[in-house]
Amino acid sequence: MSSDNLYTSVPAALMLSEFNRILSKNGFSPAKASQCAEIFTATSIDGVYTHGVNRFPKFIEYVQKGYVRPGAEPSLKNTFGSIEQWDGNLGPGPLNASFATERAMQLAEGSGIGCATLGNTNHWMRGGSYGWQAAKKGFVFIGFTNTIANMPAWGARDKRLGNNPLVIAIPYGREAIVLDMAMSQYSFGAMEMATMKREMLAYDGGFDKKGNLTKDPAAIIESGRPLAIGFWKGAGLSLLLDLLGALLSGGLATYQISSKEKEYASQVFIAIDIGKLGNHSVFTQTIENILNDYLQSTPIDNKNKIVYPGQRVVQTRQQNLQHGIPVLKEVWQAITEL
Amino acid sequence: MSSDNLYTSVPAALMLSEFNRILSKNGFSPAKASQCAEIFTATSIDGVYTHGVNRFPKFIEYVQKGYVRPGAEPSLKNTFGSIEQWDGNLGPGPLNASFATERAMQLAEGSGIGCATLGNTNHWMRGGSYGWQAAKKGFVFIGFTNTIANMPAWGARDKRLGNNPLVIAIPYGREAIVLDMAMSQYSFGAMEMATMKREMLAYDGGFDKKGNLTKDPAAIIESGRPLAIGFWKGAGLSLLLDLLGALLSGGLATYQISSKEKEYASQVFIAIDIGKLGNHSVFTQTIENILNDYLQSTPIDNKNKIVYPGQRVVQTRQQNLQHGIPVLKEVWQAITEL
Repeated sequence: MSSDNLYTSVPAALMLSEFNRILSKNGFSPAKASQCAEIFTATSIDGVYTHGVNRFPKFIEYVQKGYVRPGAEPSLKNTFGSIEQWDGNLGPGPLNASFATERAMQLAEGSGIGCATLGNTNHWMRGGSYGWQAAKKGFVFIGFTNTIANMPAWGARDKRLGNNPLVIAIPYGREAIVLDMAMSQYSFGAMEMATMKREMLAYDGGFDKKGNLTKDPAAIIESGRPLAIGFWKGAGLSLLLDLLGALLSGGLATYQISSKEKEYASQVFIAIDIGKLGNHSVFTQTIENILNDYLQSTPIDNKNKIVYPGQRVVQTRQQNLQHGIPVLKEVWQAITEL
Repeated sequence: MSSDNLYTSVPAALMLSEFNRILSKNGFSPAKASQCAEIFTATSIDGVYTHGVNRFPKFIEYVQKGYVRPGAEPSLKNTFGSIEQWDGNLGPGPLNASFATERAMQLAEGSGIGCATLGNTNHWMRGGSYGWQAAKKGFVFIGFTNTIANMPAWGARDKRLGNNPLVIAIPYGREAIVLDMAMSQYSFGAMEMATMKREMLAYDGGFDKKGNLTKDPAAIIESGRPLAIGFWKGAGLSLLLDLLGALLSGGLATYQISSKEKEYASQVFIAIDIGKLGNHSVFTQTIENILNDYLQSTPIDNKNKIVYPGQRVVQTRQQNLQHGIPVLKEVWQAITEL
């Protein structure tokens, strides 16, 4: 991809220092700028460009509009035992989410399992970031967020459900197995990209205006009817995640977020200190045995490799650290001018 | 359905006493027989016949073969803080699961969130049972189990993944919102039923032998390639649930269960004592507001009503309690002869 004429290759250290510079210029303290730059850069290194480098200009725009408050910190609203409810105070989503992940881990250290929730927080960007954060420190992680309404209920025309990403992460040696999945079959980013390239989706991604399932991304964007994973199942799971997010955090639900100018989400972070239940090297062996069996699957053809969630990320990370991060030239140009 | 000639209408009290009689005859103590009969009957009242009355003869067969040990009770293997690992000792799946749900709630009462796990346990029948159990008592519930391998990995031909049901339940006034979903788009029961009736599935349910997506249930059963919800997404979630189940319980993973004569599953039960974070009547109001918005969705046509997970169960329950539970005559005949 980086050989393509549209792309330039940006060394990770350069991206980090650019993000740092821009965040510092926009009201972030040195510590917060550094941490936030880290998260955006790591997301880009891992190949999730839509929520890393490509999203960064929009993030800065939101800071400048006052949607994201660079100095705001979470404040404790309510606590019982190993659960804490935090108000995100509209602070930077990635910093709030990273903080809540840390709190969930600290609570889990004390009692095996802990839960921190966030209301009134901004978009967390890549949900997987918090899975990696927890799993790399040896914790099992389950987290989710609600979003604005961008998907219809099953059997409905109009958008009332969020695509509410769910993240599950498991420590695996020095790496992790990280599942980071939204409830829609395809992200809007993927559908927009396919539309631009005039490509069809590989599988049905939603309904067209006439109510027929279609692989045509433009028809789905036009109808506003993307498909939930597993039809009624993913739609049901999306509703439950919204309910849990709003109830456990005391924050806004999807229908409320959708009426705001910006996405003020409700998020849940659960950590399990699995190391308290046994030896990490034994767990690693158990995982290896399971993956060994899984990876022995007979592929349907020799084009597609069988992979587990997070496996490709590790490969992309190594590649991008070695060769630089491929960024659209116009995106990088715009960033350097921020 | 009960008016159909193939069906008889069985009053709930009669079903309960028959199950009780048969379980008592097969080595269950009076208390265990009563509790187990309750779960099978409640599942049937709720309309989940495949895991209630229709499954009961098979359950008794497994007791008689020694796969299910009627007298076995869970024993504590390991604990830290609010997590407990239990060995199911091959006791009756529904009793073990109900016990673990109760333990998770007790742990949550102390610290807000609690987790009980079970290894070495039998099929829990309807996963939703434990969601209802916890939510009716005011707890949020997240639970899942692994199963034998019955679904291929994404891009694979051979079955290496379980359909690993996931249950999420939320207390809602005196009722509950209960999502109970396996990772396969259609259950084998549903595909067998459709094959028998020579009906097509409403949506693609798997691949045929040639590798094409198909709605033909017979072709999917023949190929052994049912589809995970959301293609690669549900397959990934299934793998993660298996990993979590095996790691957190110290029990068997799908690849190990599949090599056994019987399904000895690993299960995870997480309960959150949400009442410790606020007033249940406020939570109920929050839920009502969210559901009000959701149920105002514009339906695609006037054939399908928009419903939330668990909504139909409450209707079926009322109907079956009033008019009796519709049971295939031959199934009920076989049960009365047990």
